[in-house]
Amino acid sequence: MSHNTFGHLFRVTTWGESHGPALGCVVDGCPPGLRFTQDSLQHWMDKRKPGQSRFVTQRREADLVKVLSGVMLEDDGTMVTTGTPVSMLIENTDQRSKDYSDIAKRYRPGHADFTYDVKYGVRDYRGGGRSSARETAARVAAGGLARLVVPGVNVRAALVQIGEHRINRDNWDWSVVDTNPFFAPDPEIVPVWEEYLDGIRKSGSSVGAVIEVVADNVPAGLGAPIYAKLDQDIAANLMSINAVKGVEIGNGFEAARISGEENADEMRIGEDGKPVFLSNNAGGILGGISTGQPVVARFAVKPTSSILNDRRSIDADGNEVDVRTKGRHDPCVGIRAVPIGEAMVACVIADHYLRDRGQTGRLD
Amino acid sequence: MSHNTFGHLFRVTTWGESHGPALGCVVDGCPPGLRFTQDSLQHWMDKRKPGQSRFVTQRREADLVKVLSGVMLEDDGTMVTTGTPVSMLIENTDQRSKDYSDIAKRYRPGHADFTYDVKYGVRDYRGGGRSSARETAARVAAGGLARLVVPGVNVRAALVQIGEHRINRDNWDWSVVDTNPFFAPDPEIVPVWEEYLDGIRKSGSSVGAVIEVVADNVPAGLGAPIYAKLDQDIAANLMSINAVKGVEIGNGFEAARISGEENADEMRIGEDGKPVFLSNNAGGILGGISTGQPVVARFAVKPTSSILNDRRSIDADGNEVDVRTKGRHDPCVGIRAVPIGEAMVACVIADHYLRDRGQTGRLD
Amino acid sequence: MSHNTFGHLFRVTTWGESHGPALGCVVDGCPPGLRFTQDSLQHWMDKRKPGQSRFVTQRREADLVKVLSGVMLEDDGTMVTTGTPVSMLIENTDQRSKDYSDIAKRYRPGHADFTYDVKYGVRDYRGGGRSSARETAARVAAGGLARLVVPGVNVRAALVQIGEHRINRDNWDWSVVDTNPFFAPDPEIVPVWEEYLDGIRKSGSSVGAVIEVVADNVPAGLGAPIYAKLDQDIAANLMSINAVKGVEIGNGFEAARISGEENADEMRIGEDGKPVFLSNNAGGILGGISTGQPVVARFAVKPTSSILNDRRSIDADGNEVDVRTKGRHDPCVGIRAVPIGEAMVACVIADHYLRDRGQTGRLD
Amino acid sequence: MSHNTFGHLFRVTTWGESHGPALGCVVDGCPPGLRFTQDSLQHWMDKRKPGQSRFVTQRREADLVKVLSGVMLEDDGTMVTTGTPVSMLIENTDQRSKDYSDIAKRYRPGHADFTYDVKYGVRDYRGGGRSSARETAARVAAGGLARLVVPGVNVRAALVQIGEHRINRDNWDWSVVDTNPFFAPDPEIVPVWEEYLDGIRKSGSSVGAVIEVVADNVPAGLGAPIYAKLDQDIAANLMSINAVKGVEIGNGFEAARISGEENADEMRIGEDGKPVFLSNNAGGILGGISTGQPVVARFAVKPTSSILNDRRSIDADGNEVDVRTKGRHDPCVGIRAVPIGEAMVACVIADHYLRDRGQTGRLD
Repeated sequence: MSHNTFGHLFRVTTWGESHGPALGCVVDGCPPGLRFTQDSLQHWMDKRKPGQSRFVTQRREADLVKVLSGVMLEDDGTMVTTGTPVSMLIENTDQRSKDYSDIAKRYRPGHADFTYDVKYGVRDYRGGGRSSARETAARVAAGGLARLVVPGVNVRAALVQIGEHRINRDNWDWSVVDTNPFFAPDPEIVPVWEEYLDGIRKSGSSVGAVIEVVADNVPAGLGAPIYAKLDQDIAANLMSINAVKGVEIGNGFEAARISGEENADEMRIGEDGKPVFLSNNAGGILGGISTGQPVVARFAVKPTSSILNDRRSIDADGNEVDVRTKGRHDPCVGIRAVPIGEAMVACVIADHYLRDRGQTGRLD
Repeated sequence: MSHNTFGHLFRVTTWGESHGPALGCVVDGCPPGLRFTQDSLQHWMDKRKPGQSRFVTQRREADLVKVLSGVMLEDDGTMVTTGTPVSMLIENTDQRSKDYSDIAKRYRPGHADFTYDVKYGVRDYRGGGRSSARETAARVAAGGLARLVVPGVNVRAALVQIGEHRINRDNWDWSVVDTNPFFAPDPEIVPVWEEYLDGIRKSGSSVGAVIEVVADNVPAGLGAPIYAKLDQDIAANLMSINAVKGVEIGNGFEAARISGEENADEMRIGEDGKPVFLSNNAGGILGGISTGQPVVARFAVKPTSSILNDRRSIDADGNEVDVRTKGRHDPCVGIRAVPIGEAMVACVIADHYLRDRGQTGRLD
Repeated sequence: MSHNTFGHLFRVTTWGESHGPALGCVVDGCPPGLRFTQDSLQHWMDKRKPGQSRFVTQRREADLVKVLSGVMLEDDGTMVTTGTPVSMLIENTDQRSKDYSDIAKRYRPGHADFTYDVKYGVRDYRGGGRSSARETAARVAAGGLARLVVPGVNVRAALVQIGEHRINRDNWDWSVVDTNPFFAPDPEIVPVWEEYLDGIRKSGSSVGAVIEVVADNVPAGLGAPIYAKLDQDIAANLMSINAVKGVEIGNGFEAARISGEENADEMRIGEDGKPVFLSNNAGGILGGISTGQPVVARFAVKPTSSILNDRRSIDADGNEVDVRTKGRHDPCVGIRAVPIGEAMVACVIADHYLRDRGQTGRLD
Repeated sequence: MSHNTFGHLFRVTTWGESHGPALGCVVDGCPPGLRFTQDSLQHWMDKRKPGQSRFVTQRREADLVKVLSGVMLEDDGTMVTTGTPVSMLIENTDQRSKDYSDIAKRYRPGHADFTYDVKYGVRDYRGGGRSSARETAARVAAGGLARLVVPGVNVRAALVQIGEHRINRDNWDWSVVDTNPFFAPDPEIVPVWEEYLDGIRKSGSSVGAVIEVVADNVPAGLGAPIYAKLDQDIAANLMSINAVKGVEIGNGFEAARISGEENADEMRIGEDGKPVFLSNNAGGILGGISTGQPVVARFAVKPTSSILNDRRSIDADGNEVDVRTKGRHDPCVGIRAVPIGEAMVACVIADHYLRDRGQTGRLD
């Protein structure tokens, strides 16, 4: 409902700009009794942290999360949620003192500078203000809690396309995702992307990417038939990430191309006597409700708008200008979107789990 | 927030199944003083109405909207909104008395039968229950009101792909969209689709489609930076339509493939002294906020799950069965999704217009 | 959030004016599997129905509820909720054709005529429009469903004060409430009120009242510490009833007068080994959360604003006028507020039961 | 909707316990361009601050608000809202290291200890946890922003009753409210209350109070007819304050006692040609919508539950115990509720102003 909140029973409100003292989030509606440690939370933060390879922005932030409320601290450092709002704060430490006067009035192409000015009449031009990718740190922190809500759920993501280069899905191997700087699930694509992105980086250009999120062990029955479809909320949450321009569930746009016979996921009774699907074109969701199969979503991230080459634009005074972004450069923001996509899907699933439990009383 | 409501200030709640006495919606938050007639509302209903060509379901429904509240009736039949909730009701008239015993327990592949049973433990199996495409009639009625909220806005849609056959965008001509049974904007694709779909229909199969929605004259400044992005709400609203599996804004997934230089929409000052964009890859939205350019979205509809050929499935008792859908057949549900997509985007724009006016006090 | 919706998981949206074709509500979020009959629902409607004694309005309405969606009908007429929205419709049958021209422009003192005109610039002056007491029929219908959500809960109300005459609480007897035209729990007050109200009625005047609502068997643990306090939502729901000007929980304003020692509800272990409270000044709610004791609330209804005697006012054109309400007269609208208050409290409890189950997973 | 958020367009989410490192709030939906200083905000915080007289708790907190986001800082220290969420943080500085083992398991009568344990199964027993009166500091900070939203609005409150001693309304003088430790508007009551409360304090007892809130210059037209009544949201916001047990609008419960003729606020045309009301029994609200008269609300606060005298209770293990609250004692929590009540009403008015502007486009 609000402008900076998402979720209904598991509700996340984020706040903060990249150049204020801090940013953070408040997670409201968290079930009581969830147990976690500072380290377990930091694990997810570190996945998103900038500066981890030459392919992402060189900004240096510790991204240390401070949990300010909503937990009891046990002697061994374990935090236990009490059911009251969990406020988490992340300080901004790498705010280079910098002269922003050159961009305070210039509208960077592909950025929200122009639309902010039209809408609000005032704009925090320092580091992108509220639109800074730093805002997503708060989402990852919230996702760290969301992962604890549904027993057994495992939400993972991987990069499946950078520019024109896609992975070979036959090579998919989750175990390699965290061993390369791209979160690539295909070891053979890694050297290809390295060479390709080095070229992009050196030319001062940028390129887009596609990320695939897979949630395993999602209980069947989450979601609702009409305006609380599980896929609808996943689409909304992924589209809310900066620079995302498209979202697919299951086979997505491919479904438009094939026949009803090809698209239908047939069912049989498995050896354990339980229903099994023979394929997963639906991406684990039928009629807006989870089937128990893996929930699969993909999203497209546009190329970083900040590039080192001149683009034509205007300024707030109506002058025609050329704009080029100086400073630290991020040739493919899509890479760091991987842990963010995971977090956003984890939050949707946690929220729907609580909503389903509320309406139906089912306990999975 | 709720399960059957969307929108925040312009709020639409729909209700009803295809085999109850009626279905409908309540539009809450409508500004006072909007003027319309029964005919102007019915115009949109008729676009979605079934049975208008051999390529869509042969169910016959008048889809006559009754406005039950929220308006004052003037002598010439004009209705004027009063600011109180507008309740609209559409009777179900073509409910063939039919024996549903064969599908009451069988899970039709691609349908929500299995997931409903898991979630609710009870299911209205008559005609798809709440998941019937008839529910979308209520959305179109709501969209008819939404179109009145923002002065000058024009929301149109067209079919751009059926199965493997895409339109040639160079032929795009809005004036032909309503003159062919496919809402095709390319006159040359019409005979191709006719022949193709006749083949699909005769074989008892089905096929998917892609629809493009374009909203002209959307004021700049609608939306918000983070979790109320205009594109996010468009994605959510389109993904809430039955059978939709993917959503794109602007150039969408194509953005992942190209460079930052290619993707950036450059700006100049136009001859009228106002800002102009030199391209519209962004689909009229930057940082979640409208730019004043046309808002462009596309969505993919999967092939109709009800097909006349056997598919393997199971039933509620755990038996393996073959399922085939008898009766009236709809070879491409994507066709009738065109007016529905328009309605859903119109509702998002109306809602964001009111939200923006609330927060910023700007009057466009 | 919205203007015509209340509740969060058990959500009720009402619509309609007294002089349109119908009014009604949509209940969204209802758990699946609730069982009821037309008669059981009608029972509550009949309690609120006008024209049942000389002390309430003589308007004649059958107030027959039609359930249009969200249920499966069993052979014996039992309706079973499916978890989809339940739409209920009540036709307006007693709309006397009447000349409203005298009140179309005059602002009746105590009514919302003036404020509607200021706010909306257009007003449905027929029978009070949206502010008609008829709107509360939809609340009672929704309350009929709400009563089914929490096993064992019993929500009852009684009139405890009319004008200057209060009941003697020592005489409280629930069994007499439905046997007198005032919903009085004290048989001795009945003849007093009869004589008093006859005088009020004959003089064309009106008088206010106080209603007490008591909910038994509310499970401990419903509500939340801060902005979802059970008492807060009860206060909001009761204050949303037409003409209500005050709400109390437990001993209410009396709590301001007494000492901490007197006010505290002490606890002991009961003979069954369970906690017992030795008093119930708190009205069954501590820190916003139910204690398991009866939930007790009271609300004050102002005297009917429509009286047969002249009052000074103005009209929409800025003229000073005298206004007197002709026609059917209701000397104490507070009487018919009794079943409405019950319904509103029942809805709050149902909503909080689902919200608590969602967050905590407790099954009571 | 959520458990720790209130408001719809002007949305306030609070978080924090009294014994964590800090507490605070996020104000979302704030219009852009509001201007304030740290000092102007601190002014309201200081009114609520503990330790300012012997009649309130001796806890010492600076209650310094830090604004972490959502503003641009001008050279002179003025903060200008940007339309993004304003996060405000208040550190807890006076957390005496203390042994809580005696109350960790004992249920203090009148407190939420018992209900928290039932609901959540885990409880932050240090200093009342989330139910601490310290949470209200965040409300006052939010109220400081809310006061800036509607031009000209002035929200003030005063204490009108402590225990059995009420003010003489004929003596009402706003100018004395901030000159005595009780926020009393009647100078003659001050010595009476001093002597009375000294007695209460020395006996280790406590007593309740009634606060009256008056909002001047509220534009006519705010609110809505049914479930977004201005009075309803005021009632909810006031009832959400700790220890509040009753709320009245205008003449409140008195309305139940008098006749329709006495209660109606008659209207005339004033000398300036504008409508005037001849009385204000309605408390500035008709049919849920503001009339332009002062908005008047009252709320009752129960006596402080923490008293120095033994009360009977039980503990978490089912033992019968006696409970007495040691330490700093607050004989009448109602006193410090005065600025809190102001803040909560200011927030409601700001929210409804934005909501009205959104729906109707009126600019006041």
